[in-house]
Amino acid sequence: MEIFIAEESGFCFGVERALKIAHDTVKKEKLPIYTIGPLIHNPQVVKELRKEGIIPVDDLDSIEEGTLIVRSHGLPPSVIEKAKSKGFKIIDATCPFVKQAQEKAELLSKEGYQVLVLGDREHPEVKGILGVVGGSAVCINNHTNIKTISISDRVGIVAQTTQSTEKFSKAVSELTKIAKEVRAFNTICTSTRLRQEASLTLARNVDFMIVVGGKNSANTTRLAALISRENIPVKHIEGMNELKRNWFSGIKRVGITGGASTPKWLINKMKKKLEEISL
Amino acid sequence: MEIFIAEESGFCFGVERALKIAHDTVKKEKLPIYTIGPLIHNPQVVKELRKEGIIPVDDLDSIEEGTLIVRSHGLPPSVIEKAKSKGFKIIDATCPFVKQAQEKAELLSKEGYQVLVLGDREHPEVKGILGVVGGSAVCINNHTNIKTISISDRVGIVAQTTQSTEKFSKAVSELTKIAKEVRAFNTICTSTRLRQEASLTLARNVDFMIVVGGKNSANTTRLAALISRENIPVKHIEGMNELKRNWFSGIKRVGITGGASTPKWLINKMKKKLEEISL
Repeated sequence: MEIFIAEESGFCFGVERALKIAHDTVKKEKLPIYTIGPLIHNPQVVKELRKEGIIPVDDLDSIEEGTLIVRSHGLPPSVIEKAKSKGFKIIDATCPFVKQAQEKAELLSKEGYQVLVLGDREHPEVKGILGVVGGSAVCINNHTNIKTISISDRVGIVAQTTQSTEKFSKAVSELTKIAKEVRAFNTICTSTRLRQEASLTLARNVDFMIVVGGKNSANTTRLAALISRENIPVKHIEGMNELKRNWFSGIKRVGITGGASTPKWLINKMKKKLEEISL
Repeated sequence: MEIFIAEESGFCFGVERALKIAHDTVKKEKLPIYTIGPLIHNPQVVKELRKEGIIPVDDLDSIEEGTLIVRSHGLPPSVIEKAKSKGFKIIDATCPFVKQAQEKAELLSKEGYQVLVLGDREHPEVKGILGVVGGSAVCINNHTNIKTISISDRVGIVAQTTQSTEKFSKAVSELTKIAKEVRAFNTICTSTRLRQEASLTLARNVDFMIVVGGKNSANTTRLAALISRENIPVKHIEGMNELKRNWFSGIKRVGITGGASTPKWLINKMKKKLEEISL
């Protein structure tokens, strides 16, 4: 069995940066150090961080003092303000691309546009962006959602950084049919697109694909869905223990890829494990 | 033979207004009164205006003094300035919807956007809009043109008022895939769309369509093309003398429509003529 790793797999810029900030914070600040939600969407990495002293919590209510790292997805300003007022030291590890989406949404709102965010309303990044604008912003999941919303004459739109450009341009296209003015900021991070393209290129050249990464990672889940849509057998797993020998009977070429929050060491370990299975 | 007239046929708001301004100008100002190019794109109307004393000329070079009516399509500011400096009194009959397209293009340019105009670069309206922005604006005819242009990070787009919304939204959609920020002003006049829809509705319910209006009228020509695309027999004619009896052999139901610059009296006269043929 031949085993290949997709190009562009491994941490994206924003995740790499958030981890560096987290490690630096452990060196500089006193414990306890918290994140609201996991720093990144990968269980193994979060487990390691916990050993260093970085503890993910659900919300501010359960903690009283210390340092709060704002994770790569960002946080609504109201949460940051609340943390400050409780006396927490804030270390901002928001991905600069996410920050930009927040800033563009804020700019649109300040200039009087109705603000739309294309994304998944349950995703922390989208919650952060919506939080910056306040109650008036609306999240849409795709262009068909637009028909259910009352659209203003002047409408602005930004995207969750991991959305597809195709979806974004469809939404903008729909808006131009309704509004007199549409101002669209393409805040999609190129890393997601490059990763998707490289993974699909590999997938088309193998018999079976393994997508490694957190089940709570939206971009990893989407990667597996994209490959599946091409009718290539694919499994999304978090770790080695989920591998099943019988998946590979008759398989000659296997590809491995991972999401933005999947560490390269985990992908390499997966390759080694598959090589063992193959013997 | 039954004969029907499409709803929404006859002068659009901008043409009606330009004609009123022209008639008022004849009453108030001394002759000569000029327009650069015909006031509207209809030969019969222009002939009547000429009798009143309104003379269309190709450019300013051939005239020396008098009043200049800026026609419904507008004029580039450089031409208006030149006319003023030659001592002409300026009467502005630019359609308010065209004016708006000019103003939005100017706003985009002032705010530092690369300016695109979706339209026909040879149309006087587009020349006027491009003239407002100056040399940096680019005219595109459809979304595929965009691939041949170097697109800036911040791009703005307006449309010739008689373009289709479908074409406009396709162009905007394409731009969002390339630029970081797209600001789109939908400057399309609803009258064109309503006229097209009403004409198509009638066309689908008859055996033959007559489109009446100037051969130099872009919106009239487009109307005939739209109907033809639905595989309904259609003829675009300027006047009665072009009618051919043999078009109607075996035809039971005929529809008539006209462009934004086609007078209602001409459409009614056409109906009468068809009734005579039908006897």
